[in-house]
Amino acid sequence: MNYCGAPGSVLALVLRMTQFTFAAGSIASMATTSRFFNLTAFCYLIASMGLQIIWSFLLALLDLFSLVRKQSLLSPVLISLFVVGDWVTATLSLAAASASAGITVLYFHDLGHCHFGEECQKYQVSVALAFLSWFSTSLSSVIMFWLLAGR
Amino acid sequence: MNYCGAPGSVLALVLRMTQFTFAAGSIASMATTSRFFNLTAFCYLIASMGLQIIWSFLLALLDLFSLVRKQSLLSPVLISLFVVGDWVTATLSLAAASASAGITVLYFHDLGHCHFGEECQKYQVSVALAFLSWFSTSLSSVIMFWLLAGR
Repeated sequence: MNYCGAPGSVLALVLRMTQFTFAAGSIASMATTSRFFNLTAFCYLIASMGLQIIWSFLLALLDLFSLVRKQSLLSPVLISLFVVGDWVTATLSLAAASASAGITVLYFHDLGHCHFGEECQKYQVSVALAFLSWFSTSLSSVIMFWLLAGR
Repeated sequence: MNYCGAPGSVLALVLRMTQFTFAAGSIASMATTSRFFNLTAFCYLIASMGLQIIWSFLLALLDLFSLVRKQSLLSPVLISLFVVGDWVTATLSLAAASASAGITVLYFHDLGHCHFGEECQKYQVSVALAFLSWFSTSLSSVIMFWLLAGR
């Protein structure tokens, strides 16, 4: 039986690759600025997106393996593990994206304008990509939770 | 049948009152500072905690009504409504708490120390209470989602 978005389905693989891509883009945009390490929230964003990349990559590999070998990944133990992992990464991503967004809004809106030149745009792009990554992770986690609770 | 934490149970009422209390404390602590309206994230925290107060108060009234009249609130339509409301308020609370925490950490850690005198401690208390309010809302929402998916 193959549920929509269950581990080992095409939708699950697409969601994982989306998360991976957005998180990688967010890190790339933030890490190429020269001042991110002065701000705790930006360092936390990089750490959280790094965790997101590792998690999404491992799950994408599992989905791919399951698709190619046509083996089901719907055991209750595996699904429980996926649910916990998804919720932890989704919560950390949202917290990191919001904290960085708070600081970006502080610099751009509250303090008039951003004084870091070109890097300002990179901060904004990084935060936007982090929110997109969080959104696709939260989709995955809702599907996983639904699968676990509906068993 | 009375599930643990379902709407109309004592645990649900206690969780709602906890959310309400923490959110009210967070607003009280933030709104008594004189500079919060200069910072978008702090205004957003107040708005989000205000929504949390209204939502938790309404749900607490419903739980109390259900407890006193011994009427069940377990209809699928009501539970779906509670799930959506809980997820929206929980996500907004976490985002607001994280954004404010990002700015608090910026002032306290990254920029050396906070220059707003007594108000600095109030910011910290407000953020901490907002996180506690988010935590109890997320407990409620997991219980609601579990009830909905397990039906």
